[in-house]
Amino acid sequence: MANEKNQFVKEIADMTTDFPQWYTDVVLKTQLVDYGPVKGTMVIRPYGYAIWENIQKALDERFKATGHQNAYFPMFIPYSYLLREAEHVEGFAPEVALVTHVGKTELEEPMVVRPTSETIICEMYSRWVQSYRDLPVLINQWANVVRWEKTTRPFLRTSEFLWQEGHTLHATEEEAVEETLKMLEVYREFMQNVLAIEVITGRKSESEKFAGASATYTMEAMMLDGKSLQAGTSHFLGKNFSKCFKINYLDKDGSLKNPYGTSWGVSTRLIGALIMAHGDQRGLKLPPRVAPVQVVIIPVAAHKEGVKEKALEIEQILKKAGIRVKVDLSEQSPGWKFNEWEMKGVPIRLEIGPRDIENGVAVLVRRDNFEKTTVKFDTIAEEVNKTLDLIHENMYEMSKNFTHSHIVTAQNMDELTAGIEGKNFVKTMWCGCPECEAKIKELTAATSRAMPFDQTPIGDKCVCCGKKATKVIYFARAY
Amino acid sequence: MANEKNQFVKEIADMTTDFPQWYTDVVLKTQLVDYGPVKGTMVIRPYGYAIWENIQKALDERFKATGHQNAYFPMFIPYSYLLREAEHVEGFAPEVALVTHVGKTELEEPMVVRPTSETIICEMYSRWVQSYRDLPVLINQWANVVRWEKTTRPFLRTSEFLWQEGHTLHATEEEAVEETLKMLEVYREFMQNVLAIEVITGRKSESEKFAGASATYTMEAMMLDGKSLQAGTSHFLGKNFSKCFKINYLDKDGSLKNPYGTSWGVSTRLIGALIMAHGDQRGLKLPPRVAPVQVVIIPVAAHKEGVKEKALEIEQILKKAGIRVKVDLSEQSPGWKFNEWEMKGVPIRLEIGPRDIENGVAVLVRRDNFEKTTVKFDTIAEEVNKTLDLIHENMYEMSKNFTHSHIVTAQNMDELTAGIEGKNFVKTMWCGCPECEAKIKELTAATSRAMPFDQTPIGDKCVCCGKKATKVIYFARAY
Repeated sequence: MANEKNQFVKEIADMTTDFPQWYTDVVLKTQLVDYGPVKGTMVIRPYGYAIWENIQKALDERFKATGHQNAYFPMFIPYSYLLREAEHVEGFAPEVALVTHVGKTELEEPMVVRPTSETIICEMYSRWVQSYRDLPVLINQWANVVRWEKTTRPFLRTSEFLWQEGHTLHATEEEAVEETLKMLEVYREFMQNVLAIEVITGRKSESEKFAGASATYTMEAMMLDGKSLQAGTSHFLGKNFSKCFKINYLDKDGSLKNPYGTSWGVSTRLIGALIMAHGDQRGLKLPPRVAPVQVVIIPVAAHKEGVKEKALEIEQILKKAGIRVKVDLSEQSPGWKFNEWEMKGVPIRLEIGPRDIENGVAVLVRRDNFEKTTVKFDTIAEEVNKTLDLIHENMYEMSKNFTHSHIVTAQNMDELTAGIEGKNFVKTMWCGCPECEAKIKELTAATSRAMPFDQTPIGDKCVCCGKKATKVIYFARAY
Repeated sequence: MANEKNQFVKEIADMTTDFPQWYTDVVLKTQLVDYGPVKGTMVIRPYGYAIWENIQKALDERFKATGHQNAYFPMFIPYSYLLREAEHVEGFAPEVALVTHVGKTELEEPMVVRPTSETIICEMYSRWVQSYRDLPVLINQWANVVRWEKTTRPFLRTSEFLWQEGHTLHATEEEAVEETLKMLEVYREFMQNVLAIEVITGRKSESEKFAGASATYTMEAMMLDGKSLQAGTSHFLGKNFSKCFKINYLDKDGSLKNPYGTSWGVSTRLIGALIMAHGDQRGLKLPPRVAPVQVVIIPVAAHKEGVKEKALEIEQILKKAGIRVKVDLSEQSPGWKFNEWEMKGVPIRLEIGPRDIENGVAVLVRRDNFEKTTVKFDTIAEEVNKTLDLIHENMYEMSKNFTHSHIVTAQNMDELTAGIEGKNFVKTMWCGCPECEAKIKELTAATSRAMPFDQTPIGDKCVCCGKKATKVIYFARAY
């Protein structure tokens, strides 16, 4: 059994020496994903898609609880729409897929496959919004989008991906800013309470903001290889799109006004985030609240009388308690199954053998820390539910500790370089000019990640040019 | 108030004289849908999308209960894949959207935006399926698809639509046929118990079957204008795709075999079906189990003390009982609100005024038959839930009676023509040759809809050519 385990683990590359290969091995071998036939596309396999369904459910509840409704807008956008917002077209035109023909007929105007939907949604909003009574507009869409990227990785960056995009309109700037920050907080709370991932939140620099936004807010998560992952963004759009798309409403005072917009989104990239924030050398370690299988029951000596039956009985008890559970009755050995389900990241393993049945207990093994205990059949559903919460809390604590132990401060370029080389978020002061940002990127391969909401200065000079600086900012290498 | 109602109803075209305009008026004025900027596309607005979410939830539960898992496959398919199955390419090539460029770069091979996913899914299955242990494969996908149609109508036929497509593989023909029929029955049961629509099920003729299938099974629903709507199909694919895409598995006996395939789908077209199966001159009449708002509470004399408060209190009571409820506190008059929510098809209206509060009751008005009763506040959740079930049952009964009163039989072309002109399903005998089918279409504008499972003959001569006939078949004009 020990031998089998070692053989198995050997199939996954060493995460300390080759993290990218470890990631690829994990996503393919656990059957989360496969490569699609067209370069840069991915197939989300059932085990991966079930995680996405749980993510969707948790987020969708939160969107609805904050007053949003879902809708669906066409994925084909007239090319001319993209041209209306100058920054937007510059940001997206090089990477859009263009439909030029239907069958053998050439279209008069090519259509863009949406890379994001601000343009088409604002066009529709301009038809729907007439009066102050029509505001606010609070709409979200679950959809596929396409952005043609040169370097792709499953979940992290693919030509087509799944996401949600919220698009709202408000009468006042204050209300729109409040919405932008509210949705960022919805995301942050979701990361903590559902994915068990600590994030750093803040505002993006001008050069890192969304093409067309007035301000972009972000949440950044530290991956186990010391690189930051932008896990979600929320944009205050000002009147940029409402002016370009002529969204006008008659206000109470009788004058025509453009409303203020926001947009915000997270994507299947979150699956990449949870893999790289929690995984270990044995493979996936799934946060219990999105794990497709929360508990796997493995009968030991399953041929012995009553073992299989007991396993199936416990399965039903857990199912009734709302726990996602699976009994592995395949022909493989228990040792093989232990490895398989550890690799697949199932939070709890229950082992049930003849002696356990005699004692009225199952052996419970936690995936997060490999702790082994016994639980009585009588109270098994409560014990399992309690343990799932403990695993969640422990995983979040680990993510939090890891993240905060990977934040260092820098007063000069030497410290910044050392911090980046040490695989950290480097907190530093910045003068605000894009030249310094570009220079830091050139020298360290790190990019500015976020200006945190707490702007208590840690110095007064720009880490790069040495001039007066008032902005606190995080730099890191990033996905 | 009566005057207001009449004004309101006038906005919707007369369904008896101009059904197509009635449909357009209803879908636009109730804000289910709007036209997208690209011809033939639709925007599904929040009220329409909420119906789709309820449809998805009810179907998804049924798919999972029958052992299926969801996955997601890329929407871009290499053009060459389409060419591998001869019938398939003939059926779909003229109406596919082609991506030829990314930014300014021309692609080496154009990509098809999926019109359906058999080809790309079978390509992936050929990589995943190696052994008989890998069978059956039971996967479903919720996705958008694109079919460029000349004549489009919101929900009924649009260039892009939302749907689900199940794609399964099986070791034996028997098992694959069983799956095909099982999923047709899942659809039929859903139509009855969720959408309250009666359907006729059966097998499609060769000329009406899915391009690439060995056999297509269908459910056909009779719309209120006497035209049939194909509401969903389930295909037995034989080995057609598994051969073209080289899906081979090693069987127990050591030989390589191609598995048998099925595919089955329903789409946002179902929203069109429920509008045209249930609606009336006042607008929508939504089946309670998918209605986004099941109960609307309208305070009468809302300015009087305690009225608004009571309405909000009842809202909370109903919400806690799992009922989708809304209180209309807008500035409009109660009469205006009655009309508005009738048009929007909300199954139950509760009126609460000062006198009702004194008596401890609300006035309950059913949308299906306009019956007015009073319900006690004390038992209001139970009463409402019971009434929602009664409304469902009544709507299904009405659909069933309507459908069966629109089935006539024909022994000759005169009877068939009269039956079609009378807006019926015409049940008749057919020799099985496509020439007769084509001639009937030419003469009556009716197409063959389904050969029912009950093939008890009603004659022995083909209704068209008079030759020996053994097939019982339904003809109708159709969407």
